[in-house]
Amino acid sequence: MSGPATYADWIAVDWGTTHLRAWAIGKDGSLRATASSDAGMGKLSRDGFEPALLDLVKDWLGSGPTPILACGMVGAKQGWQEAPYASVPAKPVELTPMRVTAASDHRLEVFIVPGLSQATPPNVMRGEETQIAGFLALEPDFDGVLCLPGTHTKWVHLSAGEVVSFQTAMTGELFDLLSRHSVLRHTVGSDTLDPEAFAEAVSDTLSRPERLAQGLFSIRADATLNGTGASVSRARLSGALIGAELAATRPYWLGQQVVVAGAPALADLYARALAGQGVSARALDAGPLTLAGLARIRTSQTEPSLT
Amino acid sequence: MSGPATYADWIAVDWGTTHLRAWAIGKDGSLRATASSDAGMGKLSRDGFEPALLDLVKDWLGSGPTPILACGMVGAKQGWQEAPYASVPAKPVELTPMRVTAASDHRLEVFIVPGLSQATPPNVMRGEETQIAGFLALEPDFDGVLCLPGTHTKWVHLSAGEVVSFQTAMTGELFDLLSRHSVLRHTVGSDTLDPEAFAEAVSDTLSRPERLAQGLFSIRADATLNGTGASVSRARLSGALIGAELAATRPYWLGQQVVVAGAPALADLYARALAGQGVSARALDAGPLTLAGLARIRTSQTEPSLT
Repeated sequence: MSGPATYADWIAVDWGTTHLRAWAIGKDGSLRATASSDAGMGKLSRDGFEPALLDLVKDWLGSGPTPILACGMVGAKQGWQEAPYASVPAKPVELTPMRVTAASDHRLEVFIVPGLSQATPPNVMRGEETQIAGFLALEPDFDGVLCLPGTHTKWVHLSAGEVVSFQTAMTGELFDLLSRHSVLRHTVGSDTLDPEAFAEAVSDTLSRPERLAQGLFSIRADATLNGTGASVSRARLSGALIGAELAATRPYWLGQQVVVAGAPALADLYARALAGQGVSARALDAGPLTLAGLARIRTSQTEPSLT
Repeated sequence: MSGPATYADWIAVDWGTTHLRAWAIGKDGSLRATASSDAGMGKLSRDGFEPALLDLVKDWLGSGPTPILACGMVGAKQGWQEAPYASVPAKPVELTPMRVTAASDHRLEVFIVPGLSQATPPNVMRGEETQIAGFLALEPDFDGVLCLPGTHTKWVHLSAGEVVSFQTAMTGELFDLLSRHSVLRHTVGSDTLDPEAFAEAVSDTLSRPERLAQGLFSIRADATLNGTGASVSRARLSGALIGAELAATRPYWLGQQVVVAGAPALADLYARALAGQGVSARALDAGPLTLAGLARIRTSQTEPSLT
């Protein structure tokens, strides 16, 4: 948590379904303090957002209003206050945050970054637009595809600073549900992934994606009949799901410049899966991207007032 | 539960992961009583099986031993006592039940029907072999494919009374996990399935099975952006998963005689999905098949002693 008298020039907030993170930023742009809690959008009623935020950042506030820039599910319909989506094509670094009028404490001057929507095929994101802004802060001229693996993996086509289009695959959520709650849970309990079994499962599923439905149960049957180990079984489940995702997103990576930004182990897994298809993707730690994106979006907002 | 003095000639038992059902059968083959509990294999330790069974059937026992024929997960490695799989090709009605030596009460003469296994591609079933025996008791000359939709849907190629080969799709379990535990739970809470949306989703997924991974999230995105109703969303999820299953099992239904035996609403759904592909499948209520199968398997065992 913060030390005493950490007056923040502004506060950056990443507020997702399951977590709340805040960063106190000083006048010189330096990081003064960080704090986090599990007060995610998923467990808060409409009235719970302000107290949850105050609880985390109250020591950073002065007597006057402090600007707070938040991103993520806090701006969803079920969040604190809905921040309507911006439609693609859109420039993430130039998104206009929405003022939260529901905050009653005059020290909280809260703004929420809107998510992005796509009409056809229908798609939405909230939170990733800020990671993308953070990536573009680092690489403003990037032209290609950014893959953000996670619970709902996003594949984002970027050009001239714009999100041109994007896709979503529920791979992370499917892996979590299948590995923890389905019959496969008896079979895939391992901390490691056999690399050969992973590569083979990716490649098999990519070449015959229509077999996914029966391939999943085969993982269990093979373990039951042949005593296949958990590291191989887990690699097969992961490889089958990532292979199915690559089959669904082929136009996004075939012949494209690809960067995978995620938790390091996961980003590496995607990069390896793509390498098996002859695509040399660059893996990047997504950890710093949200804060970088919030800072970049804030700069876009405040820059005009300096001119 | 049973009335007093329901001495059973033998007792049929369907013992799955989540349920235990028993039928008392009289000397003339008539059904004298039924009982059930939630003492499924999943919640029992090795020592718990005998008390759970006694609890249900004790009123049906005489002073001497009563034959009890059980099927399902009770014979799994994690069950009461493992009944090793019989390999396909195999005749379900001629499977030899394994004597449970672990029963200590002398009134319990318990036998378990073995499951079936397939070496390549690896696959297993426990419980469905008895439903198949029940189906073959009704239609001994059936030559074609029997589909048993459920948590783990089985597609079974039958010829000359034998299971020639089979496949498994985890469609029911995936639907359950996705509709109750994933982000889609906000979107698919409906008691009805829009028939047109279902047919369209089956057909779309069958023609482009590689798109499944992104199609699932689109259901959510479309509801969020366009207010699509739950009946349509639920039909899309169901149709996408059944479409993926049909893509994986195409050799099992294309140009084959197909019977779908399941809970009536589910069997009808599969029959409709197949009808959309020009396959006129017959839907059958699977309710009576397990008891019919146990009775048929028992007859096969006792017949030789009559000659």
